[in-house]
Amino acid sequence: MRLSELPTPALIVEASDLQHNLAAMAATLPGSRCRPHVKAHKCTTLAAEQLASGHRSFTCATPLEVIGMAKAGLGEDLLLANETVDAQRLGAMAALSDARVTVAVDSDATIDAAAAAGIREVLIDVNVGLPRCGCDPDDAGRLADRARAKGLGVRGVMGYEGHVMPVVDRADRTKQVEECMAKLQAAHDLVGGEVTSAGGTGTYDLHRWANEIQAGSYALMDTYYGRLGLPFRQALSVWTTVISVSPKWMVCDAGLKSLGMDHGDPSIDGAKVWFCSDEHVTFAPEASSSLRSLRVGDHVKVLPAHVDPTMALHERVHIVNGDDVIDTWAIDLRGW
Amino acid sequence: MRLSELPTPALIVEASDLQHNLAAMAATLPGSRCRPHVKAHKCTTLAAEQLASGHRSFTCATPLEVIGMAKAGLGEDLLLANETVDAQRLGAMAALSDARVTVAVDSDATIDAAAAAGIREVLIDVNVGLPRCGCDPDDAGRLADRARAKGLGVRGVMGYEGHVMPVVDRADRTKQVEECMAKLQAAHDLVGGEVTSAGGTGTYDLHRWANEIQAGSYALMDTYYGRLGLPFRQALSVWTTVISVSPKWMVCDAGLKSLGMDHGDPSIDGAKVWFCSDEHVTFAPEASSSLRSLRVGDHVKVLPAHVDPTMALHERVHIVNGDDVIDTWAIDLRGW
Repeated sequence: MRLSELPTPALIVEASDLQHNLAAMAATLPGSRCRPHVKAHKCTTLAAEQLASGHRSFTCATPLEVIGMAKAGLGEDLLLANETVDAQRLGAMAALSDARVTVAVDSDATIDAAAAAGIREVLIDVNVGLPRCGCDPDDAGRLADRARAKGLGVRGVMGYEGHVMPVVDRADRTKQVEECMAKLQAAHDLVGGEVTSAGGTGTYDLHRWANEIQAGSYALMDTYYGRLGLPFRQALSVWTTVISVSPKWMVCDAGLKSLGMDHGDPSIDGAKVWFCSDEHVTFAPEASSSLRSLRVGDHVKVLPAHVDPTMALHERVHIVNGDDVIDTWAIDLRGW
Repeated sequence: MRLSELPTPALIVEASDLQHNLAAMAATLPGSRCRPHVKAHKCTTLAAEQLASGHRSFTCATPLEVIGMAKAGLGEDLLLANETVDAQRLGAMAALSDARVTVAVDSDATIDAAAAAGIREVLIDVNVGLPRCGCDPDDAGRLADRARAKGLGVRGVMGYEGHVMPVVDRADRTKQVEECMAKLQAAHDLVGGEVTSAGGTGTYDLHRWANEIQAGSYALMDTYYGRLGLPFRQALSVWTTVISVSPKWMVCDAGLKSLGMDHGDPSIDGAKVWFCSDEHVTFAPEASSSLRSLRVGDHVKVLPAHVDPTMALHERVHIVNGDDVIDTWAIDLRGW
């Protein structure tokens, strides 16, 4: 199929950009040094591409992602890097055959729920500065002891420095990563274990201590991470049709139902995006842009500001090579 | 099932609040005076409740919504209040049996595409001040002539004053509605036809001229419209589980994958929401709030800032009566 024949709005990924991104990550963080986070794409076919790039361990944010990855044959080493006390879902993860499942815990309640459900291995989730999940570093040893007393294997620690991801200045970002990792190291001194898991796309090459990085956005990218000057290309866009042209603006058929909006408006190369509605992006082409000649029925690419929630709004993503649609992948890890 | 047994995050609707909202709208705008917009909920079961409240005509934003409504037996009078030149989707709408389908057009291209696909009736979509779709009022007569020359029935005009919806001051909102409707009336003078369609939840009771109002959010509501002091209750929330408790904040398991974020952060009664991540809401209970006693595993309701994109992120919505889950409805109009 030609790209111009694709019904819109449609999520598309330029194959060469995706392959560039996978290769760039694998070159810097080969094999187990990167534990790709599947929440960023929610697509087992894309995860299989990451496996083909040498990464055999994966990070998940929901039990459904863990279970879906295991059922897709990608369960060699799955980390649920999130807390849950849902007995049924913990039990379903524990019951997976042919999968190694490790669950993050940060409290007595999450340890007890994991143990009661038959989960076998955990990481102690440590707060390294982002006010979200994660125990106080000083409490990590006590929690590890409790987990071991409950029969759980404690593989080590994790700590996500999410608040550092958007820091644009690289030197500042590096300094803050080191401050966060000092906290994680202090926790690890109390916990032990082989795994020290941290990081994300924004800090993937700034870690000197953590032995695995939970990067997700790097594969497809978005304009938010694009500001950081990382060596990853914007592979993802929403392919749209121009549905209305006025003297001062145009409208295409993407919108709030096809774009994650928490990081702000999407972008269009050569145009200023004015605002988004449920099924519309209103934009004004720049004076020198070829977009000024767009007519109703023509197509325009819209670049999402945040990849993760954008993926969650679509059933499928089309892989394109220039003007050819060469494959279509199910976004099969949506939901919980 | 008890609410406490529901896996989280889960979209829930308090049945009595929904019924209150449906009754309040039907009292002010009975029957065809309201043409409920299904984009706000994307749920044919909820649309059937609106039909039971007396509204037999509906507004849609996508061809999929039109086709899904028709197939659910709700196709007596469906308006696609949006432009499309997708020949296949226009053809699929034209081919619906037992459905009356009217399509909005605002250009030669959209008229020609509708006619070529076998669409029988259109409304001329007029720009009444929101920079989005809609023709210049002065051009409406020419477009109507073109449509009629192509064999299309022109039922009248529509114009959406979306920019007026968030105006908090009621007198100011009323004045702006009248300015917008003067434009639509001028277009209608050139176009003719029985239908003058406009409005939304924020202006539903401020129209003196338009004969049908395209209100959608009123049924479930969100915190954005909640600011306007309308007689509609917040029926919708995301039911969540507390997964982490720290001295100064708590975390529950909703987030960017379960909440429409374009209107900003969601709300929690009795707490300050700090920020959202993909699968987390970090919040701090107020000093006097009973939420301060929440522990891991307890539940909290999160109120979305924008209903429409929130619905699009969920497969189903649970109808609750206090602590009882009394029904589960598929959100079956997602996609395009």
